Amino acid sequence: MAITVVGSVALDTIETPFGAANDVLGGAASHFTLAASLYDRVNLVAIIGNDFPDHFASYFHERNVDLRGLQIAIGQTFRWGGRYQLDMNTRETLFTELGVFADFHPVLPEEYRQAEIIFLANILPSLQLDVLRQAARQEGRTQLHALDTMNLWIETARDDLEQVIRGVDIVLMAEEEVRQFTGVPGLRTAARKILALGPQMLIVKQGSYGALLFSADGSFFAAPAYPLEDVCDPTGAGDAFAGGFLGYLANRLATSGALTANDYRRALIHGNIIGSYTCEAFSVERVRRLTPEEISARYREFVNFTHFEGVY
Amino acid sequence: MAITVVGSVALDTIETPFGAANDVLGGAASHFTLAASLYDRVNLVAIIGNDFPDHFASYFHERNVDLRGLQIAIGQTFRWGGRYQLDMNTRETLFTELGVFADFHPVLPEEYRQAEIIFLANILPSLQLDVLRQAARQEGRTQLHALDTMNLWIETARDDLEQVIRGVDIVLMAEEEVRQFTGVPGLRTAARKILALGPQMLIVKQGSYGALLFSADGSFFAAPAYPLEDVCDPTGAGDAFAGGFLGYLANRLATSGALTANDYRRALIHGNIIGSYTCEAFSVERVRRLTPEEISARYREFVNFTHFEGVY
Repeated sequence: MAITVVGSVALDTIETPFGAANDVLGGAASHFTLAASLYDRVNLVAIIGNDFPDHFASYFHERNVDLRGLQIAIGQTFRWGGRYQLDMNTRETLFTELGVFADFHPVLPEEYRQAEIIFLANILPSLQLDVLRQAARQEGRTQLHALDTMNLWIETARDDLEQVIRGVDIVLMAEEEVRQFTGVPGLRTAARKILALGPQMLIVKQGSYGALLFSADGSFFAAPAYPLEDVCDPTGAGDAFAGGFLGYLANRLATSGALTANDYRRALIHGNIIGSYTCEAFSVERVRRLTPEEISARYREFVNFTHFEGVY
Repeated sequence: MAITVVGSVALDTIETPFGAANDVLGGAASHFTLAASLYDRVNLVAIIGNDFPDHFASYFHERNVDLRGLQIAIGQTFRWGGRYQLDMNTRETLFTELGVFADFHPVLPEEYRQAEIIFLANILPSLQLDVLRQAARQEGRTQLHALDTMNLWIETARDDLEQVIRGVDIVLMAEEEVRQFTGVPGLRTAARKILALGPQMLIVKQGSYGALLFSADGSFFAAPAYPLEDVCDPTGAGDAFAGGFLGYLANRLATSGALTANDYRRALIHGNIIGSYTCEAFSVERVRRLTPEEISARYREFVNFTHFEGVY
């Protein structure tokens, strides 16, 4: 069993009211990979420059990530800089230097195409479409194709985005992106519009408020977020959420050969768990040293703080 | 068993992108009363002018509300006007005409002081303090005193507000008010600061994201909001939430003589249920015609869409 992810690997420079970090490991695919590899084997498709520090590559090696799809090009690795305000919910981009990422053309090695789960992290929708074409579905196997996106593509590449949404099983979007994409303020109606395009499931990421799951069969699940003591750096929490969610699904699929509605619900909790841990340190540092015992402990907390019983 | 509420009864004028309503029944105590009276008998302490329409008084009579504490003064009833933006989360106040409410001095009839639950809806903290003094606790009885407040009092009457918080069992606050009052961005830390003043419980209202319950014993509960198809008018949803929450507690107290941690959790669900129904029509109209069957139906939906099982 395996998960293939296609997305960005970057070097981030982050300022918060409480600290800063320079040229740390970032990018959606990095956060996703270190989250999902807590649950299953991950194949990484991305591009880095020849300036990429060896010790960050070792983060992936430590987790036994397959790097045959990681392209190394002459030039600079994608760099991003951002600054958070006091409430840690609003951030401004200080700089974006695409470097070698500007010419990224993802190519999936043959084995990667066989992965049970393929995640199209937030990149240009036309590249996501290209990956979907490479990862053609095979008869008689459960394969999940999922995507994430961002406000920029909703504005500038809407047609391509709609086309790739039509081709996947699961869409992950932030709440404001769901409203932006559909033009509908009510999430329930907005979710129906997205599911009408073809996906079986829409996951709405609500940041510090948790996440929602809308299914094409009309069912709905809501999970609050884990209440953190302090937020150090929320960068990548949404990508780590996706890694926890899809990682858990891959793990269940390997164990039982099929997925139940309850598996998807528990997967959403795991997404919340890994997303919450991500915020506890800069970059991927907290998730990098996360243990199965810590995941279980937080899962038990979730069971406890969401549970109520009685018929009325 | 009974609930005494002290607060405002008003005539609201509301504009939304989808409709408008003029001089409809509003005010925190109105919304609270029509919500809580779905569960138990309510004693209402408020002030209205001699212009108050009879048919709104009949709303309270229909629910068997005790109106001996309702003062009628020569002059205008409190009037408030507000306008909502497209997202229905931001609103601006168009006008506030205090009328007779400017000289409101709440007086609790003797029977009202015996109520198991006393709710200090959002009014000037010095008046809330005065009510607390009138409603002295009695030995050997479970009595809950709860309060709500608003950003204005945090800015302008902070000392009084802190004093009244020290005197109650349960504080209900909107999320942004918790941050404003404590100066702490993280809710978990902020909650501890408020609970350190004396209350046993802090309920954090998160609007369309649900509600959180922090207990002085360190326990925590989180409930997502009910996903509405469409929001017609969110005015009063927080007060109706308080009415559903405290109404359910009063009902449980009458049934079993004591309250468990699970009762409080279910009460939070009932708060979310009544708050969500409130948004489905202007003013109190939806809650006024709400039936026990509709409450039960939405409760079952909550059980379903928050439930997950399994140890990992």
